[in-house]
Amino acid sequence: MSTLILLRHGHSEWNAKNLFTGWVDVDLNEQGVEEAVKGASMLAEAGLLPDVSHTSLLRRAIRTSQIVLDGIDRHWIPVKRSWRLNERHYGALQGKDKKATLEQYGEEQFMTWRRSYDVPPPPLADDAEFSQAEDPRYAALPDELLPRTECLADVLDRMLPYWYDSIVPDLLDHRTVLVTAHGNSLRALVKHLDGLSEEAVVGLNIPTGIPLVYDLDADLRPTIAGGTYLDPAAAEAAIAAVANQGR
Amino acid sequence: MSTLILLRHGHSEWNAKNLFTGWVDVDLNEQGVEEAVKGASMLAEAGLLPDVSHTSLLRRAIRTSQIVLDGIDRHWIPVKRSWRLNERHYGALQGKDKKATLEQYGEEQFMTWRRSYDVPPPPLADDAEFSQAEDPRYAALPDELLPRTECLADVLDRMLPYWYDSIVPDLLDHRTVLVTAHGNSLRALVKHLDGLSEEAVVGLNIPTGIPLVYDLDADLRPTIAGGTYLDPAAAEAAIAAVANQGR
Repeated sequence: MSTLILLRHGHSEWNAKNLFTGWVDVDLNEQGVEEAVKGASMLAEAGLLPDVSHTSLLRRAIRTSQIVLDGIDRHWIPVKRSWRLNERHYGALQGKDKKATLEQYGEEQFMTWRRSYDVPPPPLADDAEFSQAEDPRYAALPDELLPRTECLADVLDRMLPYWYDSIVPDLLDHRTVLVTAHGNSLRALVKHLDGLSEEAVVGLNIPTGIPLVYDLDADLRPTIAGGTYLDPAAAEAAIAAVANQGR
Repeated sequence: MSTLILLRHGHSEWNAKNLFTGWVDVDLNEQGVEEAVKGASMLAEAGLLPDVSHTSLLRRAIRTSQIVLDGIDRHWIPVKRSWRLNERHYGALQGKDKKATLEQYGEEQFMTWRRSYDVPPPPLADDAEFSQAEDPRYAALPDELLPRTECLADVLDRMLPYWYDSIVPDLLDHRTVLVTAHGNSLRALVKHLDGLSEEAVVGLNIPTGIPLVYDLDADLRPTIAGGTYLDPAAAEAAIAAVANQGR
């Protein structure tokens, strides 16, 4: 049996400002750092010690994983990173205020962009302020792979190759694997793991900073559907709060 | 041409206490954190941006590399770690006060252990307080590979396979490679790079926190013997200070 620990990074500087972030590389804020420290305590209490760490290429996930691993004396484990674990690219919404966007486009369009499965926001121009077209971390990525906007279906498509090629081999090696990533890359992964429908994943929220643990059988299927949050009460409260974000 | 950047971690909690550290996993102290921040500034000013990061399995090197990479916006580059980059195992001296050791054993024995090329201190017992025999990070290491004490010659022997198998391929890939490690693992590497004699390496000090840059030709030989410190004046002053350590 293998153990997969999913961890969504905590609050960032742009959460506090209520801006769409996506691939913009903002740092954790103080609250986000505290969430990571708490996440480490939960893993320590549960005796869950990762053997390998996977993260996105974004600072808020990388820093979360470093704080967590440092806190449980696992700072020395192998680290693997990929753009395929990045947050959803929010297209032309990146850097925009959520409330202003809601007012400008109306509830229906806003919710379609935020929550539909397969409707991406308008693409972000390569010369726009918050574009990643010239970001050195994606320089080795063929241009046709670099997203300019994404819907959740796109995130699933680009995340899955990393799941199969990098995470699955670690799990089959019977290792305890920590994946520190983002709301939408983790929703995509949970959709795959739990076999959720497109409708079900649209309603799925993953709280920040609370490790979500999946024990997987030999076929890498969850032994408990939906996994187990290490602090179920806090997870429930946080899920309700996320659903109200942007209001 | 390839660029190799060597960085010795800064002051740790045990530097301040004047204890032999070796493989004991102590953290940086505040001064060590500041040194890492300064090292990042030096790299930024020199326009040296690593493409890949290699570290030991010890927190003081790992944290230094994380602070440096975070400071120059390279937190997302690939990370590789190995026990082969660890500090010299100080044997039975680990955890002992340097001044008390000097008084107990006398100047000659003390200097032989600290500075001879091929005389290791007495081995550390597996049940000793500061032994790594039960440390989970070395659990996959066959027992005959786990050191109980080392001289500098031993460090060179166990470091070189990592140089050839992990660092050299990155350099041949024309990448800029950052190696964040320790006084003795870096002295061993510099001995190899510069073809130093055993006598010459015994007199070599590498200062903490100041990046040492080697431009390497196609045969991975230094184009400038001894490399170039990014702050030569600070390096010279620090080398003098290290030579007086323990007094």
